[in-house]
Amino acid sequence: MSHSVGRTAIVLLLAAAISPLHAADPLPSWNEGAAKQSVLEFVSRVTKEGSKDYIPPAERIAVFDNDGTLWCENPVPFQLAFALDSLKKKIETRPNLKDDPAVKAALAGDVPALIEDHHKNLLRVVALTHAGMTTDEFEAEVNDWIRTARHPRLNRLYSECIYQPMLEVLSFLRANGFQTYIVSGGGADFMRVWSERVYGIPPERVVGSYSRVKFAWRGDKPVLIKTLDSLYVDDKEGKPPAIHEFIGRRPVMCFGNSDGDKAMLEYTTVGNPRPSFGLIVHHTDAEREYAYDAKPKSSGKLVEALADAPQRGWTVVRMKDGWKHVFPPAKESK
Amino acid sequence: MSHSVGRTAIVLLLAAAISPLHAADPLPSWNEGAAKQSVLEFVSRVTKEGSKDYIPPAERIAVFDNDGTLWCENPVPFQLAFALDSLKKKIETRPNLKDDPAVKAALAGDVPALIEDHHKNLLRVVALTHAGMTTDEFEAEVNDWIRTARHPRLNRLYSECIYQPMLEVLSFLRANGFQTYIVSGGGADFMRVWSERVYGIPPERVVGSYSRVKFAWRGDKPVLIKTLDSLYVDDKEGKPPAIHEFIGRRPVMCFGNSDGDKAMLEYTTVGNPRPSFGLIVHHTDAEREYAYDAKPKSSGKLVEALADAPQRGWTVVRMKDGWKHVFPPAKESK
Repeated sequence: MSHSVGRTAIVLLLAAAISPLHAADPLPSWNEGAAKQSVLEFVSRVTKEGSKDYIPPAERIAVFDNDGTLWCENPVPFQLAFALDSLKKKIETRPNLKDDPAVKAALAGDVPALIEDHHKNLLRVVALTHAGMTTDEFEAEVNDWIRTARHPRLNRLYSECIYQPMLEVLSFLRANGFQTYIVSGGGADFMRVWSERVYGIPPERVVGSYSRVKFAWRGDKPVLIKTLDSLYVDDKEGKPPAIHEFIGRRPVMCFGNSDGDKAMLEYTTVGNPRPSFGLIVHHTDAEREYAYDAKPKSSGKLVEALADAPQRGWTVVRMKDGWKHVFPPAKESK
Repeated sequence: MSHSVGRTAIVLLLAAAISPLHAADPLPSWNEGAAKQSVLEFVSRVTKEGSKDYIPPAERIAVFDNDGTLWCENPVPFQLAFALDSLKKKIETRPNLKDDPAVKAALAGDVPALIEDHHKNLLRVVALTHAGMTTDEFEAEVNDWIRTARHPRLNRLYSECIYQPMLEVLSFLRANGFQTYIVSGGGADFMRVWSERVYGIPPERVVGSYSRVKFAWRGDKPVLIKTLDSLYVDDKEGKPPAIHEFIGRRPVMCFGNSDGDKAMLEYTTVGNPRPSFGLIVHHTDAEREYAYDAKPKSSGKLVEALADAPQRGWTVVRMKDGWKHVFPPAKESK
């Protein structure tokens, strides 16, 4: 290559780097179509300085549901898989637990027995696996699990059952000055252990279900003990209050996949003085992932939010035809 | 000025701008001494890449109490001044309120009457001034108040009764990659209205006392209604749990001024695997501000935390001799 060609190449590279018109496609795993265009168009419109729709960076709050929106929720929500694995580990050191009716019901997958008598047995399982230890102990346990536990069908770690197209949206939004938050019914303490590694979302941007921790001393060191007191379930009409409580600003973008996200889609997009955007992931891909809406096998019922989408102007992406790829390449496989 | 001198001046300016060794003093309102040095030394030590004490930016969490640490808390905590002013305004449109025993007690400053019978009257005043309206309505009311309400003695707006030396610490920390959070017994919804303007701390980094808001519809628009349900008081041993709940990371720097901050000072500095730093503002300046510790006239009792400071390695700054200036210049005065 002559020096002169080299210089031309450098000039072209620089031109490409500084010109947004020549930027690479930020959403390569999305098929061309209305859903992809709606994301690109909204972000372009609200980040253009001087435009009437301009949103200052401080107010660029985007909220994402987790189960079914950023990662799978089948065959069961992954936090339940964690709880069952955790229960099995506890039995190794405390074999008497096997005789506990709640433990028996959980290991047998006996849902009626778990939820009878005001969810008595289910709450006992949650208490055994999510309370009574320090926050550091819980974090270590989740960490061990998330690094090794594998999905029963998808041939990859649970932490790799995440949607590549949504990872691209997260990166694209952050590159455009948005703050990306998780707002999920999952446990905050559970998600915060791995959310930064997996999604690039740090703990302080994870809003989830939670219950009180208690300040205490273990010898000469302060610790926080997890309890089940004042449980707050961050789902359905609980999501907008949690957004207010934790973030304190009204979002301008909201991504969900179920009726559990309807209230936060409404709070984001209905009567918001700022331009706003809502998107629903519709699970229509039984082959590459799962197909469900009105009758999910696990969580994720989607009826009302889907029916409201046209009148609300919410984008619906149908996984089967909207997404070129569903998952990122798995780092290892068996 | 000749062209040649001009060019030299520009070169020198550039050299100063890019050389940290020649950076201006980041804490000009602090008198030279151990307190100032301890802040500078800690930040320098933990931000030096490759050093064994290096703390990655994501973990540079600094928490600040508000009342008495970032702004005054005398003659009464400013949020109480807001509540009384708000009560007076409500009486203008609802004169019957004047006959309400709780309102009478509040306006008369009759503390025994306010707290008798399990704080019945005090809770009624809080309900009248902090609940039953939408979050937008409350925000507008706080906004009106904070823009105009003036301190009774200090000849400035309440929002200007803030400590210039602490503003410098906030800026210095942020310039060094720290996230600065408020962790205060004050109401989160109250502080979030003005914290960004006044301290450069955005709403999502304000942790305070809170109670539930409720998702509801006003006509065709979703709103959040403030209630007094599930009140959480973010003070004393409630502070470390709130830090965990809202931030999800253990801080490495903590600034407080009272025994109400002792637990979060301990949580930050005792047994923390990271290097850590604690600082107490001791109010010793009756002339420029107020002088109090064991017997405050308002909130801010400081006995136990002060006694523990030497053994815990917490820095104590005595306002009178530690700070060159207490307040920033007031924007207007009467």
